[in-house]
Amino acid sequence: MKNFEFYNPTKIYFGKGEVDKLGGLIKNIGHKVLLVYGKSSIKKIGLYDTVLKQLKDNGIEVFELNGVDPNPRIESVREGQTICKEHNIDVVLGVGGGSVIDCSKAIALAAKYDGDPWDIYSYKYSPVESLPVASILTLSATGTEMNGNSVITNFATEDKNGFGSILSYPVFSILDPELTFSVSKYQTGCGIADTLTHVYEFYFSNDKSHLNDRVCESIMKTVVHYGPKAISNPHDYEARANLMFGSTLALNGLTSFGKTWEGFNHTTEHVLGAFWDIAHGAGLAITAAHWMKYILNEKNVDKFYEFAVNVWGVGPGENKMEIAKQGIEKVWEFYHIIGMPLTLTEVGITNPDLDKVATQATRYGTLGNYRPLTKEDVKQILTNAL
Amino acid sequence: MKNFEFYNPTKIYFGKGEVDKLGGLIKNIGHKVLLVYGKSSIKKIGLYDTVLKQLKDNGIEVFELNGVDPNPRIESVREGQTICKEHNIDVVLGVGGGSVIDCSKAIALAAKYDGDPWDIYSYKYSPVESLPVASILTLSATGTEMNGNSVITNFATEDKNGFGSILSYPVFSILDPELTFSVSKYQTGCGIADTLTHVYEFYFSNDKSHLNDRVCESIMKTVVHYGPKAISNPHDYEARANLMFGSTLALNGLTSFGKTWEGFNHTTEHVLGAFWDIAHGAGLAITAAHWMKYILNEKNVDKFYEFAVNVWGVGPGENKMEIAKQGIEKVWEFYHIIGMPLTLTEVGITNPDLDKVATQATRYGTLGNYRPLTKEDVKQILTNAL
Repeated sequence: MKNFEFYNPTKIYFGKGEVDKLGGLIKNIGHKVLLVYGKSSIKKIGLYDTVLKQLKDNGIEVFELNGVDPNPRIESVREGQTICKEHNIDVVLGVGGGSVIDCSKAIALAAKYDGDPWDIYSYKYSPVESLPVASILTLSATGTEMNGNSVITNFATEDKNGFGSILSYPVFSILDPELTFSVSKYQTGCGIADTLTHVYEFYFSNDKSHLNDRVCESIMKTVVHYGPKAISNPHDYEARANLMFGSTLALNGLTSFGKTWEGFNHTTEHVLGAFWDIAHGAGLAITAAHWMKYILNEKNVDKFYEFAVNVWGVGPGENKMEIAKQGIEKVWEFYHIIGMPLTLTEVGITNPDLDKVATQATRYGTLGNYRPLTKEDVKQILTNAL
Repeated sequence: MKNFEFYNPTKIYFGKGEVDKLGGLIKNIGHKVLLVYGKSSIKKIGLYDTVLKQLKDNGIEVFELNGVDPNPRIESVREGQTICKEHNIDVVLGVGGGSVIDCSKAIALAAKYDGDPWDIYSYKYSPVESLPVASILTLSATGTEMNGNSVITNFATEDKNGFGSILSYPVFSILDPELTFSVSKYQTGCGIADTLTHVYEFYFSNDKSHLNDRVCESIMKTVVHYGPKAISNPHDYEARANLMFGSTLALNGLTSFGKTWEGFNHTTEHVLGAFWDIAHGAGLAITAAHWMKYILNEKNVDKFYEFAVNVWGVGPGENKMEIAKQGIEKVWEFYHIIGMPLTLTEVGITNPDLDKVATQATRYGTLGNYRPLTKEDVKQILTNAL
């Protein structure tokens, strides 16, 4: 097992009704809140009113930034930065899915910076402080509610860039599975694909860690078990609860200890997402399905065999390559069952310039260590995915 | 899934050579350290010299409390309290196994209290502050390196009592698997039994959580896989590393989310440990082996079946009770393989007053919710274990 650091300062309040603790929790960290949210969904489910009541009953002054898009834009961050500076905001509260929370983290960093926030996401400026961030999660997917990562899109420069910092861990996040009851089947599927990909990106690794592998499998098994249940019955609390905390654990440090990140899927999807405004999880389902088929070989067959047996219930059997392939078939079937696309065409990407995508995806070098992928590999995987 | 809070502020530095970071880390939290350790083992492995050099090279003043016993005594805590107050200690650094770290936590609480430290462990005084605690772990077992628990023994009152507080989470803990290479086969076995019991006590629960169950199984599988390897080859780094972080995860919140603690084993072992100075893990192996046999019934057979199949590789099969029993047989065999006792006689407890033990163990009521155990149940389990 490789050396590692393991630390996560975010406090999670999990379960139905936990939003009722919001006012008291926020009061401990600030008194002027920037409430960040998306379009109308938190109003539709009544969450907006609950949040406002909690904040106002606790004497907290509220400013708002709404309309944050999926694949949150740098423009929203700039807008939030301006509000924070003008009104001396002392806490940023994101209420929504990963995009809203990522945008909140970016605003909290930008509030403590005098330049343009894109400097942070284009790695020209390294932040040294941040406003505190808190979150109420309404979509199980990215894990941002318990990590220091955020991803911001700049369509002007065709970039979708991530930034990770200890400064960006939410002070607390409230996770109520009931808040995900209204998530559409498609978005639920996207969240599941995102969660699984987070696990793949540490599970499939040259770094050996039995404990890490078994923990990764425990999360994948749970997600595979409950994904279809949540889609067929959106009000299934147990399914929503297991998917919700599964997505949190999939990217809070628990899947990554002693492992190197194997980032083909997220890197490539971010490039696709910067060129075409596709749902992140759907993009990942497409890349991951074709990536697995492409990279399986004699060298890594043992790991794919374990994956097939331990996660997908295939085998066991003597012909490891055959079992490994059956495991990948199960992944494809599963994506189909949860309504995920398996080709770029299905998400409206037709006649793409894949040379440009592959060049951009490999601009910092080959992707991953498990099986390092060159520009030509990336292009081939995406060609297979057309 | 039940509502829960999930929070753990301890930072882990894991892997070989991480002790070289000690001085720099301590400097961030204080300049006058009370170094707490046991008998001579940290001197034998050269760790004592490394620690002193790290601290002195960083200008940190060091005071010492040594000779902390397994089942750490309230007398050591009192001694540490006096040193802290006399010398204005600002950090307590425990270097050793669970006993040393527990003692360090108790001293850190006592340093901020003007009364007798036993008031804390007899629940007469509820601490409101603590000195910061840090640790270097040399034994994989209790999980104290990443939680807020400590257990102190008072032979004068025949009590072995635990206390848990957010104040007692170590600021950081250094976990170098190489520091456990010299742990004896017997103590390694005890650590494994302790780790497994921590998991049992949340895994076997009326509270349903698929994700929690799978995570629990991932830790148990790892421990079962590597336990015998570490015992047959004490210098097997992978085995020691997996056991070490497995024992940390077994009691850092990851096995307990959404579950109620099922404390027959620890409660009963603490009573045994207060009457007879037995190794904690050995006591737990005995209680757990007999507890499983005793509590298995038609109501809980499904969980024992899962345990047998998912952890011990028995079955699957149609006769769930038969498979469940085979799983428990595997537990017994495993304890035998790792050199753990399975009867009280083997640890020198002969002709015990089991009525007294059972009375003391159930003094706050029946034990557990999974299958609530009365005084008579406890007495019967221990009688079976004679």
